[in-house]
Amino acid sequence: MTRPERPTIRDVARVAGVSKGAVSFALNGRPGIAEGTRQRILDAARSLGWTPSHQARALSVSRAFAVGLVLARPPELLGADPFFPAFIAGVERTLSERGQALVLQVVPDARAEQDGYRRLAGAGRVDGVFLLDLRVADPRIALLRELGMPAVTIARPDVPSDFPALLVDDRPGITAAVRHLVELGHRRIAHVAGPAHFLHGSVRRRAWEQALTDAGLPASTVVESDFSAAGGAQATRVLLEAGERPTAIVYANDLMAIAGLSVAVEHGIAVPAQLSVTGFDNTELAGYVSPPLTSVRTDPYHWGRSAAEALLALIDGETVDDVAVPAAQLVVRASTAPPPPTV
Amino acid sequence: MTRPERPTIRDVARVAGVSKGAVSFALNGRPGIAEGTRQRILDAARSLGWTPSHQARALSVSRAFAVGLVLARPPELLGADPFFPAFIAGVERTLSERGQALVLQVVPDARAEQDGYRRLAGAGRVDGVFLLDLRVADPRIALLRELGMPAVTIARPDVPSDFPALLVDDRPGITAAVRHLVELGHRRIAHVAGPAHFLHGSVRRRAWEQALTDAGLPASTVVESDFSAAGGAQATRVLLEAGERPTAIVYANDLMAIAGLSVAVEHGIAVPAQLSVTGFDNTELAGYVSPPLTSVRTDPYHWGRSAAEALLALIDGETVDDVAVPAAQLVVRASTAPPPPTV
Repeated sequence: MTRPERPTIRDVARVAGVSKGAVSFALNGRPGIAEGTRQRILDAARSLGWTPSHQARALSVSRAFAVGLVLARPPELLGADPFFPAFIAGVERTLSERGQALVLQVVPDARAEQDGYRRLAGAGRVDGVFLLDLRVADPRIALLRELGMPAVTIARPDVPSDFPALLVDDRPGITAAVRHLVELGHRRIAHVAGPAHFLHGSVRRRAWEQALTDAGLPASTVVESDFSAAGGAQATRVLLEAGERPTAIVYANDLMAIAGLSVAVEHGIAVPAQLSVTGFDNTELAGYVSPPLTSVRTDPYHWGRSAAEALLALIDGETVDDVAVPAAQLVVRASTAPPPPTV
Repeated sequence: MTRPERPTIRDVARVAGVSKGAVSFALNGRPGIAEGTRQRILDAARSLGWTPSHQARALSVSRAFAVGLVLARPPELLGADPFFPAFIAGVERTLSERGQALVLQVVPDARAEQDGYRRLAGAGRVDGVFLLDLRVADPRIALLRELGMPAVTIARPDVPSDFPALLVDDRPGITAAVRHLVELGHRRIAHVAGPAHFLHGSVRRRAWEQALTDAGLPASTVVESDFSAAGGAQATRVLLEAGERPTAIVYANDLMAIAGLSVAVEHGIAVPAQLSVTGFDNTELAGYVSPPLTSVRTDPYHWGRSAAEALLALIDGETVDDVAVPAAQLVVRASTAPPPPTV
């Protein structure tokens, strides 16, 4: 088996009827080329099967032309979480337009995650990385600074960080869920939280607390769980078997909420007549469980696109500010209703 | 920000008390080193924070020290499918032990998938690739041969292929599900299939047909769907609104089966008293829906490990045979029971 000869930038220029310089600008996603010309060049490159020669480019400018992502989650939980594939699909969309690649590592825990970033940096495999699943006082901020590795954080860390952040904010979604339940007449609104050492776990919990406080209601009934179906089921049992059980539960993700629905059935508690339930993520399945789940819609695909654009700009030496993203939206379905009148 | 000086193989050799050659052998995963020595060298490398210098290695031997995977699925479906993250976690486990990286591409459809493999090969980014989601008469087999790119296919293709295959076989799992339903007394057992252009979609469908034929039962009621929750719900509506509705439905994946459970509730049909339901994949959620779902357990994490080992051996120039994997297992839960006596 031999590799066919590769088309060159000269070939692309000939087919598109432009200069080699224009091809280079267009293929590297640089500004300064008219959109029609850019499109003609990209079409020519595509028809010829042109691809950047990664090793040649990397050699000439000491760059990997790749960015990295380390995911620290047990495989079974990763599989149930729709966030990562959607985020990665968005990242890829931006990277593929720019001839860049994504190097992915999946590791079982936080310690291995730091080793993962060290490996990516030490091996010169990537020019920059994404930081997801930020932790409270996340040690990776200092680690990446020490490694001299450009990074974009998904959400703003709670420690000083020079890296641009995608300003993901889970609070408005949780606030909207609690307000919706308060307006329906609920007074005992519990929370099944994600792990408190994750920033998104603790941010969602604090948003629930604040929204209840704002409504003059107690925020005392919270069970910390782990975002898994098993954890959500267990937390729901604790809440439904308590002396004075809640009339509504705000879950920190859909997976735990869907497991919660089945625990309610087990206990003979009708949703939404006797118990209202809300999720977070608005997974595809949320609309196809019984009853369909009220949830909070976010947009990880577009987050991925935006984060990749910011990271590539940073790698190119541009000054990159924090990036705003649209706020999360509450999607009301049939799992929420007024509380039972007898309560 | 400056990068700290990297530890060298010489440093690792000194700490481990062995020769530089032994370190090189151990770190490259080559045979011929006693396991205790190998472990001591890996520990020393780890304690020093040693990582292979990717660019230096790639330069000296014209290798990328990376393997590639292109996933062609719409982001929302990818997010709901637990197969990929588990498979990737297994791949990563093997790669990280060998100083190799995974380059991932996520593309929206089959056409972009072929472009993806062309790009990976043309750019010299990877030394080999995995082929997942095989299609009927999959054109990627010929493409990768033409590109001279080593590959391991997940399942054996239905076209001639020189590439080693991971001998994934979905048939025993589907056969076990149908037999379980036949033994419970069901005679009208429908199937909600995956897309017929996917090999796993058509293999599962044929296994359902064959198992019914073996039991002397008709295999006439099948609805082709797309593995999504929306598709599973729609297919279930078709089956439940038919003149003579089935007493059991074998779904080609859990996501469609879980959506089917909620459609049964909508139609006032009790599961399992009036309708039995089986899934495929044994996702975490399968055990936490109502009723808990009878499903088929596979082991994508270990498939990932095995596929990566085979691919690395192939890249090293070894002769690699097809790789056997354990058969899928039926996990019986509460969604299956004898059919109603009146039917």
